[in-house]
Amino acid sequence: MSLIILKIGGSVITEKGSISRSRDAEIDRISHEIAAFRKDSDSRIILVHGAGSFGHPQAMKYKLNEGFDAEGAYLTHSSVKLLNSRVVESLNNAGVHALPVHPLSSCLLENGKLIDFQLGQIKVMLEKGIVPVLHGDVVMDRTKGASVLSGDRIIPYLAIVLKASKIGAGSDVDGVLDEKGTVIRKITPFNFLDLKKSIKGSGSTDVTGGMLGKVSELLELAGKGVDSRIFNASRKGLVSRFLYGEDVGTLIADK
Amino acid sequence: MSLIILKIGGSVITEKGSISRSRDAEIDRISHEIAAFRKDSDSRIILVHGAGSFGHPQAMKYKLNEGFDAEGAYLTHSSVKLLNSRVVESLNNAGVHALPVHPLSSCLLENGKLIDFQLGQIKVMLEKGIVPVLHGDVVMDRTKGASVLSGDRIIPYLAIVLKASKIGAGSDVDGVLDEKGTVIRKITPFNFLDLKKSIKGSGSTDVTGGMLGKVSELLELAGKGVDSRIFNASRKGLVSRFLYGEDVGTLIADK
Repeated sequence: MSLIILKIGGSVITEKGSISRSRDAEIDRISHEIAAFRKDSDSRIILVHGAGSFGHPQAMKYKLNEGFDAEGAYLTHSSVKLLNSRVVESLNNAGVHALPVHPLSSCLLENGKLIDFQLGQIKVMLEKGIVPVLHGDVVMDRTKGASVLSGDRIIPYLAIVLKASKIGAGSDVDGVLDEKGTVIRKITPFNFLDLKKSIKGSGSTDVTGGMLGKVSELLELAGKGVDSRIFNASRKGLVSRFLYGEDVGTLIADK
Repeated sequence: MSLIILKIGGSVITEKGSISRSRDAEIDRISHEIAAFRKDSDSRIILVHGAGSFGHPQAMKYKLNEGFDAEGAYLTHSSVKLLNSRVVESLNNAGVHALPVHPLSSCLLENGKLIDFQLGQIKVMLEKGIVPVLHGDVVMDRTKGASVLSGDRIIPYLAIVLKASKIGAGSDVDGVLDEKGTVIRKITPFNFLDLKKSIKGSGSTDVTGGMLGKVSELLELAGKGVDSRIFNASRKGLVSRFLYGEDVGTLIADK
């Protein structure tokens, strides 16, 4: 049975520059795209969403990546969980059986690295036709006390251990862009070195490094047999087209 | 470092016979009793609370113990998590750093038996002076799809693996009662057989069996070195007196 891991970036489902404001219409639209696909396909789906304005301002305020702060960890986790509840509720309202899996309850880090992740419950959810919904979160860390675990870093772990068939990383850009702003259709280990210098960011802060880092990580996954696509989940219909296997955004593959 | 596991029954913190109504004043009172104790003691504390009217009516409605129901699992989990959020918020407001650990995200059952439980994050929370707050929940089950995992069944697992020093089971009765309604001060393997026939229930439904079952389970734990007390957490000050090690309710010990 094929397993699709779909990431929806925080920038797609929350308002940038706000604090804890969700884009409910976008969340509902994506839920309906997933619901329609599930009527046609028995593929298993895991959804991982970013924290966006429900996590970044809080993590910044309490400097969660610099040192341990119990109050900051509590408030940030509570906030991200609100966003997660809206996503899970929206999916269920659209007819997709979905259950939350909170990284704070299920993951353990060591110096920022994910070293333990309870996956047994996720496997049973998938067998039962349920979409597990994970998210960027504050997670306990054996070295640092607590750290931020982004949705992007959850995905490679899940993809390898659960043997995903493909990964979709939906953000608010059309894919990996070159210096002219054109979407690069396909990245493989063979053209990556040439393309590397011309890859543009997504317009958000630190994202040039972020986009390059993301591509490197996804290339590594491609080397292990899991292809992925970076595409624009803010455009209507693209989540659906990705799920159906259409050629959207940038394909990252081994060959 | 000593570890105390405190269970607060759903009957203490929710209204019986209602649906999803919490007793916020009771929750706050208990939070303050815990907060005051923590100023005097560096004992580690895990809090486990029941689901009460946030879980039982829903579990009953969707017959969660009879077969798998994705919608029922979602609605019941969402509801219990609301209660958990109030408890965790109340503790933090009282000055106790507390973080939730949701069994649906961290546990796995097989035919109703707890076979896997992510505990690494709980250990780091305890080291960092945080009170992990767990609760009765719907949990995925490899055989049944999903089942109800009560707070009472979480406790022996935590107690053994984390080497608890003592357990307090706070309910809305004064302890284990004999046929005249008098609290039995102490139960050991030596007097249990004699006492067994005279042990009374707590007034709630299935609780005669429930109380006997609870005592048997706690006696087994006592045999492994973890004493416990069943006491009335609805009475003001008793959570505090239990934490300070006073002789409240019924002591269940090996000798």
